[in-house]
Amino acid sequence: MARLAEFGRWKAQSLGRADLSRKGSVDADAAPVVERLNAREEFFTTSSCAGRVLLLDGSTNDSGIQKQHCRWLLVTHRPCVKDDVVAALKGATSNAVLKFEPFILHVQCRTLQDAQTLHSVAIESGFRNSGITVGKRGKTMLAVRSTHGLEVPLSHKGKLMVTEEYIEFLLTIANQKMEENKKRIERFYSCLQHALERKATSSSHSEIQEKNNALCTHKTNRNQGKARDPSVTEDYEKELEGDDGLGISAAFLLEDD
Amino acid sequence: MARLAEFGRWKAQSLGRADLSRKGSVDADAAPVVERLNAREEFFTTSSCAGRVLLLDGSTNDSGIQKQHCRWLLVTHRPCVKDDVVAALKGATSNAVLKFEPFILHVQCRTLQDAQTLHSVAIESGFRNSGITVGKRGKTMLAVRSTHGLEVPLSHKGKLMVTEEYIEFLLTIANQKMEENKKRIERFYSCLQHALERKATSSSHSEIQEKNNALCTHKTNRNQGKARDPSVTEDYEKELEGDDGLGISAAFLLEDD
Repeated sequence: MARLAEFGRWKAQSLGRADLSRKGSVDADAAPVVERLNAREEFFTTSSCAGRVLLLDGSTNDSGIQKQHCRWLLVTHRPCVKDDVVAALKGATSNAVLKFEPFILHVQCRTLQDAQTLHSVAIESGFRNSGITVGKRGKTMLAVRSTHGLEVPLSHKGKLMVTEEYIEFLLTIANQKMEENKKRIERFYSCLQHALERKATSSSHSEIQEKNNALCTHKTNRNQGKARDPSVTEDYEKELEGDDGLGISAAFLLEDD
Repeated sequence: MARLAEFGRWKAQSLGRADLSRKGSVDADAAPVVERLNAREEFFTTSSCAGRVLLLDGSTNDSGIQKQHCRWLLVTHRPCVKDDVVAALKGATSNAVLKFEPFILHVQCRTLQDAQTLHSVAIESGFRNSGITVGKRGKTMLAVRSTHGLEVPLSHKGKLMVTEEYIEFLLTIANQKMEENKKRIERFYSCLQHALERKATSSSHSEIQEKNNALCTHKTNRNQGKARDPSVTEDYEKELEGDDGLGISAAFLLEDD
Protein backbone atom coordinates (compact mmCIF):
# COMPACT_ATOMS: atom_id res chain seq x y z
CA MET A 1 0.00 0.00 0.00
CA ALA A 2 2.89 2.31 0.88
CA ARG A 3 4.34 1.50 -2.57
CA LEU A 4 1.15 2.58 -4.30
CA ALA A 5 0.96 5.82 -2.33
CA GLU A 6 4.61 6.46 -3.16
CA PHE A 7 3.87 5.94 -6.84
CA GLY A 8 1.03 8.45 -6.61
CA ARG A 9 3.37 11.01 -5.05
CA TRP A 10 6.03 10.44 -7.71
CA LYS A 11 3.42 10.89 -10.41
CA ALA A 12 2.04 14.13 -8.96
CA GLN A 13 5.56 15.50 -8.52
CA SER A 14 6.67 14.49 -11.99
CA LEU A 15 3.63 15.80 -13.86
CA GLY A 16 3.74 19.02 -11.81
CA ARG A 17 7.23 19.90 -12.97
CA ALA A 18 8.06 22.21 -15.85
CA ASP A 19 8.81 20.62 -19.22
CA LEU A 20 12.58 21.00 -19.46
CA SER A 21 12.96 19.86 -23.05
CA ARG A 22 14.40 22.16 -25.70
CA LYS A 23 10.99 22.32 -27.35
CA GLY A 24 9.13 22.76 -24.07
CA SER A 25 6.09 20.70 -25.06
CA VAL A 26 5.06 17.18 -26.07
CA ASP A 27 5.30 16.47 -29.83
CA ALA A 28 1.87 16.49 -31.50
CA ASP A 29 2.15 12.92 -32.80
CA ALA A 30 3.09 11.59 -29.35
CA ALA A 31 0.44 13.58 -27.44
CA PRO A 32 -2.50 11.11 -27.70
CA VAL A 33 -0.37 8.25 -26.29
CA VAL A 34 1.14 10.48 -23.57
CA GLU A 35 -2.31 11.78 -22.53
CA ARG A 36 -3.85 8.29 -22.56
CA LEU A 37 -1.12 6.95 -20.28
CA ASN A 38 -1.12 9.90 -17.89
CA ALA A 39 -4.90 9.57 -17.49
CA ARG A 40 -4.35 6.08 -15.99
CA GLU A 41 -3.46 5.67 -12.35
CA GLU A 42 -0.90 2.92 -13.06
CA PHE A 43 1.30 4.96 -15.45
CA PHE A 44 2.94 8.29 -16.05
CA THR A 45 5.29 9.33 -18.85
CA THR A 46 8.64 10.92 -18.07
CA SER A 47 9.87 11.74 -21.60
CA SER A 48 8.84 11.31 -25.20
CA CYS A 49 9.82 12.16 -28.76
CA ALA A 50 7.47 11.44 -31.67
CA GLY A 51 10.35 10.83 -34.07
CA ARG A 52 12.42 13.31 -36.04
CA VAL A 53 15.02 14.03 -38.66
CA LEU A 54 18.00 15.72 -37.04
CA LEU A 55 21.07 17.30 -38.58
CA LEU A 56 23.90 17.70 -36.07
CA ASP A 57 27.28 19.37 -36.44
CA GLY A 58 30.11 18.66 -34.05
CA SER A 59 33.56 17.21 -33.73
CA THR A 60 33.95 13.49 -33.25
CA ASN A 61 36.15 11.94 -30.57
CA ASP A 62 38.42 8.93 -31.15
CA SER A 63 35.50 6.64 -30.48
CA GLY A 64 33.67 7.84 -33.58
CA ILE A 65 30.99 9.37 -31.35
CA GLN A 66 30.01 12.99 -31.66
CA LYS A 67 30.89 15.00 -28.62
CA GLN A 68 28.33 16.51 -26.35
CA HIS A 69 27.19 20.06 -27.08
CA CYS A 70 27.24 19.63 -30.83
CA ARG A 71 25.09 22.10 -32.75
CA TRP A 72 21.68 21.31 -34.14
CA LEU A 73 21.57 22.55 -37.72
CA LEU A 74 18.05 21.29 -38.36
CA VAL A 75 15.33 19.34 -36.61
CA THR A 76 11.92 18.41 -37.93
CA HIS A 77 9.14 16.07 -36.92
CA ARG A 78 7.64 16.32 -40.41
CA PRO A 79 8.83 15.05 -43.80
CA CYS A 80 11.97 16.84 -44.85
CA VAL A 81 12.97 18.36 -48.22
CA LYS A 82 16.43 18.47 -49.78
CA ASP A 83 16.69 22.26 -50.02
CA ASP A 84 16.24 22.66 -46.25
CA VAL A 85 19.02 20.15 -45.54
CA VAL A 86 21.35 21.63 -48.17
CA ALA A 87 20.77 25.13 -46.73
CA ALA A 88 21.34 23.91 -43.16
CA LEU A 89 24.53 22.09 -44.20
CA LYS A 90 26.05 25.43 -45.30
CA GLY A 91 26.32 26.17 -41.57
CA ALA A 92 28.39 23.03 -40.91
CA THR A 93 31.94 23.74 -39.80
CA SER A 94 32.74 20.32 -38.37
CA ASN A 95 31.36 16.78 -38.86
CA ALA A 96 27.68 16.94 -39.78
CA VAL A 97 25.55 13.81 -39.35
CA LEU A 98 21.97 13.25 -40.45
CA LYS A 99 19.89 11.04 -38.19
CA PHE A 100 16.41 9.70 -38.29
CA GLU A 101 15.35 8.97 -34.72
CA PRO A 102 12.10 7.05 -34.27
CA PHE A 103 9.46 7.42 -31.52
CA ILE A 104 10.77 7.06 -28.00
CA LEU A 105 8.80 7.03 -24.79
CA HIS A 106 9.64 6.48 -21.13
CA VAL A 107 6.86 5.43 -18.82
CA GLN A 108 7.04 4.91 -15.09
CA CYS A 109 4.78 2.02 -14.07
CA ARG A 110 3.13 1.34 -10.73
CA THR A 111 4.01 -2.38 -10.68
CA LEU A 112 6.12 -4.82 -12.67
CA GLN A 113 2.92 -6.34 -14.00
CA ASP A 114 1.81 -2.94 -15.35
CA ALA A 115 5.20 -2.63 -17.06
CA GLN A 116 4.77 -6.12 -18.56
CA THR A 117 1.36 -5.17 -19.96
CA LEU A 118 2.79 -2.04 -21.56
CA HIS A 119 5.85 -3.94 -22.81
CA SER A 120 3.57 -6.39 -24.64
CA VAL A 121 1.74 -3.45 -26.22
CA ALA A 122 5.08 -2.01 -27.37
CA ILE A 123 6.27 -5.29 -28.88
CA GLU A 124 2.92 -5.85 -30.61
CA SER A 125 3.12 -2.40 -32.17
CA GLY A 126 6.60 -2.99 -33.60
CA PHE A 127 8.78 -1.31 -30.93
CA ARG A 128 10.94 -4.32 -30.52
CA ASN A 129 13.87 -2.76 -28.65
CA SER A 130 11.65 -1.81 -25.72
CA GLY A 131 12.69 -2.92 -22.25
CA ILE A 132 11.99 -2.60 -18.54
CA THR A 133 14.29 -1.06 -15.94
CA VAL A 134 13.80 -1.80 -12.24
CA GLY A 135 15.62 0.50 -9.81
CA LYS A 136 16.91 -0.63 -6.43
CA ARG A 137 13.95 0.93 -4.63
CA GLY A 138 11.57 -0.78 -7.05
CA LYS A 139 10.97 2.14 -9.39
CA THR A 140 9.83 0.46 -12.60
CA MET A 141 10.22 2.11 -16.00
CA LEU A 142 9.37 0.97 -19.49
CA ALA A 143 11.39 2.42 -22.37
CA VAL A 144 9.58 2.13 -25.71
CA ARG A 145 12.19 1.92 -28.47
CA SER A 146 12.36 1.02 -32.13
CA THR A 147 15.34 -0.20 -34.14
CA HIS A 148 14.17 1.76 -37.09
CA GLY A 149 16.77 4.55 -37.48
CA LEU A 150 19.34 6.11 -39.78
CA GLU A 151 22.70 7.61 -38.91
CA VAL A 152 24.60 9.03 -41.86
CA PRO A 153 27.79 11.13 -41.69
CA LEU A 154 27.55 13.88 -44.34
CA SER A 155 30.48 16.22 -43.86
CA HIS A 156 34.05 16.12 -42.54
CA LYS A 157 35.65 19.21 -41.02
CA GLY A 158 33.08 21.37 -42.79
CA LYS A 159 33.55 19.70 -46.19
CA LEU A 160 30.44 18.10 -47.67
CA MET A 161 31.26 14.47 -48.55
CA VAL A 162 28.13 13.62 -50.58
CA THR A 163 26.21 15.03 -53.54
CA GLU A 164 22.84 16.80 -53.48
CA GLU A 165 21.47 13.83 -55.40
CA TYR A 166 22.53 11.58 -52.52
CA ILE A 167 20.86 13.89 -49.98
CA GLU A 168 17.64 13.70 -51.97
CA PHE A 169 17.88 9.88 -52.07
CA LEU A 170 18.60 9.78 -48.32
CA LEU A 171 15.64 12.01 -47.47
CA THR A 172 13.28 9.78 -49.45
CA ILE A 173 14.31 6.94 -47.14
CA ALA A 174 14.18 9.12 -44.01
CA ASN A 175 10.69 10.31 -44.92
CA GLN A 176 9.50 6.74 -45.53
CA LYS A 177 10.81 5.82 -42.10
CA MET A 178 9.03 8.84 -40.63
CA GLU A 179 5.77 7.65 -42.21
CA GLU A 180 6.22 4.09 -40.93
CA ASN A 181 7.09 5.48 -37.49
CA LYS A 182 3.81 7.41 -37.43
CA LYS A 183 1.90 4.22 -38.27
CA ARG A 184 3.62 2.43 -35.41
CA ILE A 185 2.64 5.18 -32.94
CA GLU A 186 -0.98 4.85 -34.09
CA ARG A 187 -0.71 1.07 -33.69
CA PHE A 188 0.72 1.60 -30.21
CA TYR A 189 -2.25 3.81 -29.28
CA SER A 190 -4.71 1.29 -30.63
CA CYS A 191 -3.04 -1.70 -28.92
CA LEU A 192 -2.82 0.28 -25.66
CA GLN A 193 -6.53 1.06 -25.87
CA HIS A 194 -7.34 -2.63 -26.34
CA ALA A 195 -5.02 -3.75 -23.57
CA LEU A 196 -6.64 -1.32 -21.15
CA GLU A 197 -10.14 -2.41 -22.18
CA ARG A 198 -9.12 -6.05 -21.83
CA LYS A 199 -7.83 -5.30 -18.35
CA ALA A 200 -11.12 -3.65 -17.41
CA THR A 201 -13.31 -6.47 -18.64
CA SER A 202 -10.67 -9.08 -17.62
CA SER A 203 -11.71 -12.69 -17.24
CA SER A 204 -15.47 -12.17 -17.24
CA HIS A 205 -15.89 -11.42 -20.95
CA SER A 206 -13.69 -13.75 -22.88
CA GLU A 207 -15.44 -13.02 -26.19
CA ILE A 208 -14.59 -9.32 -26.01
CA GLN A 209 -11.01 -10.27 -25.27
CA GLU A 210 -10.79 -12.34 -28.39
CA LYS A 211 -12.25 -9.54 -30.51
CA ASN A 212 -9.76 -7.07 -29.07
CA ASN A 213 -6.88 -9.43 -29.61
CA ALA A 214 -7.82 -9.72 -33.25
CA LEU A 215 -7.87 -5.93 -33.64
CA CYS A 216 -4.56 -5.46 -31.95
CA THR A 217 -2.59 -7.99 -33.94
CA HIS A 218 -3.24 -6.13 -37.19
CA LYS A 219 0.34 -5.65 -38.30
CA THR A 220 2.28 -5.22 -41.51
CA ASN A 221 2.58 -8.26 -43.73
CA ARG A 222 6.22 -8.82 -42.95
CA ASN A 223 5.38 -9.33 -39.30
CA GLN A 224 2.68 -11.87 -39.81
CA GLY A 225 3.06 -15.44 -38.73
CA LYS A 226 6.02 -14.63 -36.50
CA ALA A 227 6.59 -15.52 -32.88
CA ARG A 228 5.10 -12.98 -30.48
CA ASP A 229 7.11 -13.89 -27.40
CA PRO A 230 8.47 -10.59 -26.04
CA SER A 231 11.54 -12.42 -24.81
CA VAL A 232 12.75 -12.80 -28.39
CA THR A 233 12.36 -9.15 -29.31
CA GLU A 234 15.85 -8.48 -30.48
CA ASP A 235 16.45 -11.63 -32.43
CA TYR A 236 13.02 -11.27 -33.92
CA GLU A 237 13.89 -7.76 -35.00
CA LYS A 238 17.21 -8.92 -36.38
CA GLU A 239 15.49 -11.65 -38.30
CA LEU A 240 13.01 -9.18 -39.74
CA GLU A 241 15.78 -6.86 -40.81
CA GLY A 242 17.34 -9.77 -42.72
CA ASP A 243 19.94 -9.90 -40.08
CA ASP A 244 19.95 -13.45 -38.91
CA GLY A 245 23.62 -14.07 -38.37
CA LEU A 246 23.91 -13.48 -34.64
CA GLY A 247 26.42 -15.77 -32.99
CA ILE A 248 23.82 -17.72 -31.09
CA SER A 249 25.41 -19.18 -28.02
CA ALA A 250 22.29 -21.17 -27.29
CA ALA A 251 18.98 -21.21 -29.12
CA PHE A 252 16.07 -19.21 -27.82
CA LEU A 253 13.40 -21.00 -25.88
CA LEU A 254 10.30 -20.02 -27.76
CA GLU A 255 7.77 -21.78 -25.56
CA ASP A 256 7.79 -19.12 -22.84
CA ASP A 257 4.30 -17.70 -22.68
CA MET B 1 12.12 -23.75 -5.46
CA ALA B 2 10.21 -25.13 -8.44
CA ARG B 3 11.13 -21.90 -10.29
CA LEU B 4 14.83 -22.49 -9.67
CA ALA B 5 14.66 -26.10 -10.83
CA GLU B 6 12.76 -24.94 -13.93
CA PHE B 7 15.50 -22.38 -14.64
CA GLY B 8 18.12 -25.14 -14.38
CA ARG B 9 16.19 -27.27 -16.89
CA TRP B 10 15.83 -24.33 -19.30
CA LYS B 11 19.54 -23.67 -19.05
CA ALA B 12 20.57 -27.29 -19.68
CA GLN B 13 18.17 -27.50 -22.62
CA SER B 14 19.31 -24.21 -24.11
CA LEU B 15 23.05 -24.80 -23.79
CA GLY B 16 22.62 -28.34 -25.11
CA ARG B 17 21.14 -27.16 -28.38
CA ALA B 18 23.05 -26.66 -31.60
CA ASP B 19 24.21 -23.13 -32.44
CA LEU B 20 21.78 -22.15 -35.19
CA SER B 21 23.47 -18.88 -36.18
CA ARG B 22 24.81 -18.35 -39.69
CA LYS B 23 28.33 -18.41 -38.30
CA GLY B 24 27.71 -21.41 -36.03
CA SER B 25 29.87 -20.19 -33.16
CA VAL B 26 30.21 -17.39 -30.63
CA ASP B 27 32.24 -14.39 -31.85
CA ALA B 28 35.75 -14.32 -30.36
CA ASP B 29 35.33 -10.89 -28.75
CA ALA B 30 32.07 -11.93 -27.07
CA ALA B 31 33.31 -15.34 -25.91
CA PRO B 32 34.84 -14.32 -22.53
CA VAL B 33 31.60 -12.61 -21.44
CA VAL B 34 29.45 -15.49 -22.73
CA GLU B 35 31.62 -18.09 -20.95
CA ARG B 36 31.72 -16.11 -17.71
CA LEU B 37 27.92 -15.83 -17.64
CA ASN B 38 27.26 -19.44 -18.58
CA ALA B 39 29.59 -20.61 -15.79
CA ARG B 40 27.23 -18.97 -13.27
CA GLU B 41 24.14 -20.79 -12.04
CA GLU B 42 21.97 -17.64 -12.20
CA PHE B 43 22.53 -16.87 -15.90
CA PHE B 44 22.73 -18.30 -19.36
CA THR B 45 23.15 -16.53 -22.69
CA THR B 46 20.75 -17.15 -25.55
CA SER B 47 22.34 -15.08 -28.30
CA SER B 48 25.25 -12.73 -28.86
CA CYS B 49 27.08 -10.72 -31.49
CA ALA B 50 30.38 -9.02 -30.73
CA GLY B 51 29.68 -6.17 -33.17
CA ARG B 52 30.20 -5.99 -36.89
CA VAL B 53 30.23 -4.02 -40.10
CA LEU B 54 27.58 -5.37 -42.43
CA LEU B 55 26.85 -4.56 -46.06
CA LEU B 56 23.36 -5.64 -47.09
CA ASP B 57 21.69 -5.57 -50.49
CA GLY B 58 17.95 -5.77 -50.87
CA SER B 59 14.87 -3.96 -51.99
CA THR B 60 13.19 -1.55 -49.61
CA ASN B 61 9.47 -1.57 -48.93
CA ASP B 62 7.35 1.58 -48.66
CA SER B 63 8.30 1.88 -45.02
CA GLY B 64 11.95 2.49 -45.90
CA ILE B 65 12.87 -0.81 -44.27
CA GLN B 66 14.83 -3.44 -46.13
CA LYS B 67 12.85 -6.55 -46.77
CA GLN B 68 13.65 -9.85 -45.20
CA HIS B 69 15.99 -12.19 -47.06
CA CYS B 70 18.21 -9.43 -48.35
CA ARG B 71 21.69 -10.53 -49.38
CA TRP B 72 24.78 -10.07 -47.24
CA LEU B 73 27.51 -8.65 -49.45
CA LEU B 74 30.04 -8.39 -46.64
CA VAL B 75 30.26 -8.97 -42.91
CA THR B 76 33.26 -8.48 -40.67
CA HIS B 77 33.90 -8.33 -36.94
CA ARG B 78 37.28 -6.67 -37.59
CA PRO B 79 38.22 -3.21 -38.91
CA CYS B 80 37.18 -2.86 -42.51
CA VAL B 81 39.08 -1.43 -45.53
CA LYS B 82 37.65 0.55 -48.43
CA ASP B 83 38.74 -1.86 -51.17
CA ASP B 84 36.76 -4.72 -49.60
CA VAL B 85 33.59 -2.62 -49.46
CA VAL B 86 34.05 -1.25 -52.98
CA ALA B 87 34.58 -4.81 -54.30
CA ALA B 88 31.54 -6.11 -52.41
CA LEU B 89 29.40 -3.22 -53.70
CA LYS B 90 30.01 -4.39 -57.28
CA GLY B 91 27.66 -7.27 -56.41
CA ALA B 92 24.84 -4.89 -55.41
CA THR B 93 21.82 -5.04 -57.70
CA SER B 94 19.32 -3.36 -55.40
CA ASN B 95 19.56 -0.98 -52.41
CA ALA B 96 22.82 -1.57 -50.54
CA VAL B 97 23.13 -0.30 -46.97
CA LEU B 98 26.21 -0.24 -44.76
CA LYS B 99 25.59 -0.79 -41.07
CA PHE B 100 27.73 -0.84 -38.01
CA GLU B 101 26.00 -2.96 -35.39
CA PRO B 102 27.46 -2.88 -31.88
CA PHE B 103 27.69 -5.71 -29.32
CA ILE B 104 24.42 -7.36 -28.47
CA LEU B 105 23.75 -10.02 -25.89
CA HIS B 106 20.66 -11.77 -24.55
CA VAL B 107 20.87 -13.36 -21.14
CA GLN B 108 18.20 -15.36 -19.39
CA CYS B 109 18.30 -14.68 -15.64
CA ARG B 110 17.14 -16.86 -12.75
CA THR B 111 15.41 -14.04 -10.88
CA LEU B 112 14.45 -10.42 -11.47
CA GLN B 113 17.15 -9.43 -8.97
CA ASP B 114 19.79 -11.25 -11.03
CA ALA B 115 18.55 -9.36 -14.10
CA GLN B 116 18.79 -6.07 -12.18
CA THR B 117 22.39 -6.83 -11.19
CA LEU B 118 23.32 -7.55 -14.79
CA HIS B 119 21.38 -4.51 -16.03
CA SER B 120 23.45 -2.27 -13.74
CA VAL B 121 26.62 -3.85 -15.13
CA ALA B 122 25.40 -3.13 -18.67
CA ILE B 123 24.57 0.51 -17.90
CA GLU B 124 27.90 1.03 -16.10
CA SER B 125 29.74 -0.31 -19.15
CA GLY B 126 28.01 2.06 -21.56
CA PHE B 127 25.24 -0.20 -22.95
CA ARG B 128 22.56 2.28 -22.20
CA ASN B 129 19.75 0.84 -24.32
CA SER B 130 19.71 -2.38 -22.32
CA GLY B 131 16.44 -3.57 -20.84
CA ILE B 132 14.66 -6.40 -19.07
CA THR B 133 11.84 -8.51 -20.46
CA VAL B 134 9.60 -10.55 -18.16
CA GLY B 135 7.43 -13.20 -19.82
CA LYS B 136 4.02 -14.24 -18.52
CA ARG B 137 5.45 -17.36 -16.91
CA GLY B 138 8.16 -15.28 -15.26
CA LYS B 139 10.96 -15.99 -17.73
CA THR B 140 13.31 -13.07 -17.23
CA MET B 141 15.70 -11.88 -19.95
CA LEU B 142 18.18 -9.06 -20.12
CA ALA B 143 19.02 -7.61 -23.54
CA VAL B 144 22.35 -5.76 -23.56
CA ARG B 145 22.19 -3.05 -26.22
CA SER B 146 24.15 0.01 -27.25
CA THR B 147 22.95 3.06 -29.18
CA HIS B 148 26.25 3.26 -30.92
CA GLY B 149 25.47 2.35 -34.56
CA LEU B 150 25.54 3.52 -38.16
CA GLU B 151 23.05 2.91 -40.94
CA VAL B 152 24.01 4.40 -44.27
CA PRO B 153 22.25 3.77 -47.60
CA LEU B 154 24.92 3.50 -50.33
CA SER B 155 23.22 2.42 -53.54
CA HIS B 156 19.83 2.68 -55.20
CA LYS B 157 18.63 0.00 -57.62
CA GLY B 158 22.22 -1.12 -58.11
CA LYS B 159 23.57 2.40 -58.72
CA LEU B 160 26.24 3.57 -56.28
CA MET B 161 25.16 6.93 -54.81
CA VAL B 162 28.42 7.91 -53.09
CA THR B 163 32.10 8.30 -53.99
CA GLU B 164 34.97 6.02 -52.97
CA GLU B 165 36.30 8.92 -50.93
CA TYR B 166 33.04 8.95 -48.97
CA ILE B 167 33.28 5.19 -48.37
CA GLU B 168 36.79 5.65 -47.00
CA PHE B 169 35.55 8.46 -44.70
CA LEU B 170 32.61 6.32 -43.57
CA LEU B 171 34.83 3.33 -42.78
CA THR B 172 37.11 5.47 -40.63
CA ILE B 173 34.06 6.26 -38.49
CA ALA B 174 32.79 2.65 -38.55
CA ASN B 175 36.22 1.38 -37.47
CA GLN B 176 36.39 3.91 -34.62
CA LYS B 177 33.00 2.72 -33.47
CA MET B 178 34.22 -0.88 -33.69
CA GLU B 179 37.20 0.00 -31.48
CA GLU B 180 35.01 1.80 -28.93
CA ASN B 181 32.62 -1.16 -28.98
CA LYS B 182 35.48 -3.52 -28.12
CA LYS B 183 36.43 -1.32 -25.16
CA ARG B 184 32.85 -1.43 -23.93
CA ILE B 185 32.79 -5.23 -24.09
CA GLU B 186 36.02 -5.32 -22.04
CA ARG B 187 34.46 -2.87 -19.58
CA PHE B 188 31.37 -5.09 -19.40
CA TYR B 189 33.54 -8.11 -18.57
CA SER B 190 35.41 -6.19 -15.92
CA CYS B 191 32.26 -4.73 -14.33
CA LEU B 192 30.61 -8.17 -14.41
CA GLN B 193 33.60 -9.68 -12.66
CA HIS B 194 33.42 -7.04 -9.94
CA ALA B 195 29.66 -7.36 -9.53
CA LEU B 196 29.98 -11.12 -9.09
CA GLU B 197 32.82 -10.73 -6.58
CA ARG B 198 30.83 -8.11 -4.72
CA LYS B 199 27.89 -10.49 -4.58
CA ALA B 200 30.12 -13.27 -3.20
CA THR B 201 31.68 -11.17 -0.46
CA SER B 202 28.41 -9.22 0.01
CA SER B 203 27.90 -7.29 3.22
CA SER B 204 30.75 -8.83 5.23
CA HIS B 205 33.65 -7.09 3.47
CA SER B 206 32.66 -3.52 2.84
CA GLU B 207 36.23 -2.44 2.06
CA ILE B 208 36.55 -4.87 -0.83
CA GLN B 209 33.24 -3.60 -2.15
CA GLU B 210 34.48 -0.06 -2.20
CA LYS B 211 37.65 -1.07 -4.01
CA ASN B 212 35.64 -2.96 -6.61
CA ASN B 213 33.27 -0.08 -7.07
CA ALA B 214 36.18 2.19 -7.80
CA LEU B 215 37.55 -0.22 -10.42
CA CYS B 216 34.23 -0.64 -12.12
CA THR B 217 33.38 3.02 -12.55
CA HIS B 218 36.45 3.64 -14.69
CA LYS B 219 34.73 5.07 -17.73
CA THR B 220 35.50 7.41 -20.58
CA ASN B 221 35.83 11.09 -19.74
CA ARG B 222 32.59 12.05 -21.37
CA ASN B 223 30.68 9.80 -18.99
CA GLN B 224 32.16 11.12 -15.81
CA GLY B 225 30.15 13.03 -13.30
CA LYS B 226 26.87 11.88 -14.76
CA ALA B 227 23.91 10.28 -13.01
CA ARG B 228 24.11 6.50 -12.84
CA ASP B 229 20.47 5.73 -12.27
CA PRO B 230 19.58 2.93 -14.70
CA SER B 231 16.08 4.33 -14.96
CA VAL B 232 17.40 7.26 -16.97
CA THR B 233 19.33 5.19 -19.47
CA GLU B 234 17.82 6.53 -22.61
CA ASP B 235 17.74 10.19 -21.73
CA TYR B 236 21.21 9.86 -20.38
CA GLU B 237 22.33 8.37 -23.65
CA LYS B 238 20.51 11.07 -25.59
CA GLU B 239 22.14 13.72 -23.50
CA LEU B 240 25.56 12.21 -24.10
CA GLU B 241 24.96 12.08 -27.80
CA GLY B 242 24.24 15.79 -27.74
CA ASP B 243 20.65 14.95 -28.24
CA ASP B 244 18.88 16.75 -25.47
CA GLY B 245 15.71 17.93 -27.17
CA LEU B 246 13.28 15.18 -26.18
CA GLY B 247 9.77 16.47 -25.62
CA ILE B 248 9.85 15.82 -21.91
CA SER B 249 6.32 15.34 -20.72
CA ALA B 250 7.48 15.29 -17.14
CA ALA B 251 10.99 15.51 -15.74
CA PHE B 252 12.84 12.40 -14.66
CA LEU B 253 12.99 11.61 -10.98
CA LEU B 254 16.68 11.23 -10.44
CA GLU B 255 16.58 10.32 -6.78
CA ASP B 256 15.60 6.70 -7.35
CA ASP B 257 18.51 4.61 -6.09
